[in-house]
Amino acid sequence: MDRVDIAIIGSGPAGISAAINAKIRSKSFLLFGSGLSTKVELSEKIDNYPAIFGVTGHELNEQFNVHMKKMGIEITEERVTSIYNMGEFFYILADQKAFEASCVILATGAETVKPIEGEREFLGLGVSYCATCDGGLYKNRTIAVVCENNEMEEEVHYLAELADKIYYFPKFKSELDAENIELIDRKIKSVNGVERVEKIVLKDEKEIEVDGVFFLKEAVSADVLLKGLAIENGYIVVDHDMKTNIKGCFAAGDCTGRPFQIAKAVGEGNTAAHSAFSYLAELKK
Amino acid sequence: MDRVDIAIIGSGPAGISAAINAKIRSKSFLLFGSGLSTKVELSEKIDNYPAIFGVTGHELNEQFNVHMKKMGIEITEERVTSIYNMGEFFYILADQKAFEASCVILATGAETVKPIEGEREFLGLGVSYCATCDGGLYKNRTIAVVCENNEMEEEVHYLAELADKIYYFPKFKSELDAENIELIDRKIKSVNGVERVEKIVLKDEKEIEVDGVFFLKEAVSADVLLKGLAIENGYIVVDHDMKTNIKGCFAAGDCTGRPFQIAKAVGEGNTAAHSAFSYLAELKK
Repeated sequence: MDRVDIAIIGSGPAGISAAINAKIRSKSFLLFGSGLSTKVELSEKIDNYPAIFGVTGHELNEQFNVHMKKMGIEITEERVTSIYNMGEFFYILADQKAFEASCVILATGAETVKPIEGEREFLGLGVSYCATCDGGLYKNRTIAVVCENNEMEEEVHYLAELADKIYYFPKFKSELDAENIELIDRKIKSVNGVERVEKIVLKDEKEIEVDGVFFLKEAVSADVLLKGLAIENGYIVVDHDMKTNIKGCFAAGDCTGRPFQIAKAVGEGNTAAHSAFSYLAELKK
Repeated sequence: MDRVDIAIIGSGPAGISAAINAKIRSKSFLLFGSGLSTKVELSEKIDNYPAIFGVTGHELNEQFNVHMKKMGIEITEERVTSIYNMGEFFYILADQKAFEASCVILATGAETVKPIEGEREFLGLGVSYCATCDGGLYKNRTIAVVCENNEMEEEVHYLAELADKIYYFPKFKSELDAENIELIDRKIKSVNGVERVEKIVLKDEKEIEVDGVFFLKEAVSADVLLKGLAIENGYIVVDHDMKTNIKGCFAAGDCTGRPFQIAKAVGEGNTAAHSAFSYLAELKK
């Protein structure tokens, strides 16, 4: 497996900014993401990205896209599910493909949805964020699936082929129809169990016995991706150079905290990339 | 005197970004500076300001200018010479005019010229950065004047009207001609004296007796502007929120250290502005 210099996780403004600088400095890199930022795309009007006044989010994304195209930067669309710190490098799993990178820039965005009670405690003990990775464990079993958006519903289909029964909690108007899928129009309050997940409790206190719960969401929290990463109030702790507590791991953009601004994100992406260059130079000594 | 919410010191990308956000949030502010960044203006080609690929510095400055004009943001051209921390507000001297601001964002750029030996030690004891402020002290006396650029030469004229004799060290091809001005085409090595400035020593070891030395430069170091400001390796110490060690004082851009990049500067200007908004909200409680 070829090892790249930098793995950039997230293709919003922070990730793009980091990638642009990596390209200019002739570093090998992977820019992981599912296309351009939805948050930018949905912005009605942006007045505070200096030098571009009064633009829509869609227009600005288009300009990011043109910039990347002109530089030959491509997005790797595999969804990163785990990053392992191997000391001298990082081992990255994305849709069950493996990648290696000498350093990592996390630009995963802000988690918009807070984890529910029990979600984090049972991660790996019945809770999963990745259908592809963990679906096989639930063959002929009963699971709950929370799905954040339409585009990820394909993974629910996949799970329905394996599981015996799915209690399905879409966060959008879903038209999914399958014999073993029961659509539930209420919210989950907590995930419960003793050593592993045993049931979910709904907001109306109704309990449902399940063997596992899948939370299918765009952005998995950074500390779930990379164990040992220091987090404070839900954001990655960074210093002014965008260094995290893990050597060779940098972060930029909304995942490092407020303000949630495009200018701030591109600035931090730039700084994180430059810190990565210094780190790579040190590594090669 | 009306007190503004925010005084932004420096009108490069960081200062402009802070001003744009202050304007959007309806804060009263002053953006001090001598026009747009010369450093940007002189950049031949900029490829890493996301969304604008392959632009000249001049073109990017023009786009900054258009952005400011569309928002009605103006630059206050008075040169800031001192900032005093009064606890609840800051008192700002600029070309001998006085201003007040509830908080300050320093975006003064990186000092490109290192201070010479003795320069900092004798600051206020014969060394000055401001002809308008301190010229009067040298009436009929002998001074040395170091001038960084053409545009500031007007201040040398002013000093020549006061001083008896000027040893003049322009850093550009000067055609200044006055009876009491002696143009010297060598560099100063150090400023020397016991309690006050007594002489300068040139690189060729020649000594010249003077009563004072004026260093006329565009960017005065931030810790000279504002006493007590924490500096490390020549840069203002900031945290991830762009807070300095002084309450109500924030910093952004090249003055906080590398990378010296436009994206990084606008990002930090954005963050500094948002930290200032939080600070102002706290003040009003």
